[in-house]
Amino acid sequence: MALDADDTLWHNEPLFTSVRDQFCAMLDRYQPDGIPSDWLYGVEMRNLQHFGYGVKGFALSMIETAIEMTGGRLEARDVSRIIEWGREMLASPVELLDGVCEVVEELATAYPLILLTKGDLLHQETKLARSGLGHHFKGIEIVSEKDARIYRQVMTRYAVQPRRFVMVGNSLRSDILPVIEAGGHAVYVPYEGTWVHEHVPAEELESLQFHEIATIRELPGVLREFLPPDGGSHDSAGAERS
Amino acid sequence: MALDADDTLWHNEPLFTSVRDQFCAMLDRYQPDGIPSDWLYGVEMRNLQHFGYGVKGFALSMIETAIEMTGGRLEARDVSRIIEWGREMLASPVELLDGVCEVVEELATAYPLILLTKGDLLHQETKLARSGLGHHFKGIEIVSEKDARIYRQVMTRYAVQPRRFVMVGNSLRSDILPVIEAGGHAVYVPYEGTWVHEHVPAEELESLQFHEIATIRELPGVLREFLPPDGGSHDSAGAERS
Repeated sequence: MALDADDTLWHNEPLFTSVRDQFCAMLDRYQPDGIPSDWLYGVEMRNLQHFGYGVKGFALSMIETAIEMTGGRLEARDVSRIIEWGREMLASPVELLDGVCEVVEELATAYPLILLTKGDLLHQETKLARSGLGHHFKGIEIVSEKDARIYRQVMTRYAVQPRRFVMVGNSLRSDILPVIEAGGHAVYVPYEGTWVHEHVPAEELESLQFHEIATIRELPGVLREFLPPDGGSHDSAGAERS
Repeated sequence: MALDADDTLWHNEPLFTSVRDQFCAMLDRYQPDGIPSDWLYGVEMRNLQHFGYGVKGFALSMIETAIEMTGGRLEARDVSRIIEWGREMLASPVELLDGVCEVVEELATAYPLILLTKGDLLHQETKLARSGLGHHFKGIEIVSEKDARIYRQVMTRYAVQPRRFVMVGNSLRSDILPVIEAGGHAVYVPYEGTWVHEHVPAEELESLQFHEIATIRELPGVLREFLPPDGGSHDSAGAERS
């Protein structure tokens, strides 16, 4: 089974939210036309194809937004401050979500675990190292985008049949929809404040079957229902996806 | 066998060199104290642990260097220009080195090929897609650093014995030394203008056994000498590392 990392195992979005708030306060001093957070989101989306996900692209997008919104009046020391925020985010301690430590340890004894996350390669690796969870994972897959093709590749690489594959994560867009498309199971653990880019319209979810839990502490119990750890197939697991 | 990508399969360093030259010319207008290229290298090294390799970190380091060297006089439009250079580098067409297309096609019929490269995840993936070579590779491994530990992991992942593993690349530091340390073979294909960070002092190379070729066109011939494609072991190949 595969687990998402940011906002599934450890807190991530609050770091971005905090820096976004500081960024907006910085721009307010220039009295810009427009709403900084909206403008920043637009720049981030425009840059996504070039910069991908992660802190470095976020920092570059903040700088661009600030220059655009101030009509070039942005002071160099504020540019430096943005880069410093980026460096601080990258060096920030990893804070595990409640229950993660115990649950991951328990699951690792019953299932081969894969960490499956997107973002900056080096940053995700260092976060995993800092988390102290690294030794529980059989494989680490850091990808540039999570779509059905990527999930199929991971299933093939680890020789897991789709109906024996489970993805657990906090993003409907990245962790749930594409896994179901690839024929696997998905367990949704919502995280308050998930980035708007990861949201999915309600009508796209209506016909989909996935499991939703309030906290990762419920994960072992839910898994026992449809994925017995003995490795044998389970009728209801197969039927669920047909 | 594994192949490096940047400056082994396609040109990369000339892009950085060209942007470095434009960056130095930009800074000259501010009449800074110090040599911009040296200062930039210092900032890049300082940031490596945070930003890793790749274009986004390079852009952030250029901005920091420019602010430091101008004592904050750097104009916002020059910051924008640096970010634009970064975006242009990321979107730049992939130009294969001479002979790569034919040689990779030939090798793929005889050996399972792995692409093994460091840098930005998304950028390396898009370059491989643009290169048209993707279908020749059995595996793609984009890593944050190339050390002996990583090479051992790759050997394990693809179930290749060290003495049957060959790495081909243009960086002594990343493609040659750590592979030999991990018990594998290395083929060095120098590239004119390789980044100074990848250089290795001559005395570190003295006692090491690796193959050096002038162009990738010589690779199939060299491989036949020590790695017969039938998959059988070859006495001299084993002996070479002992």
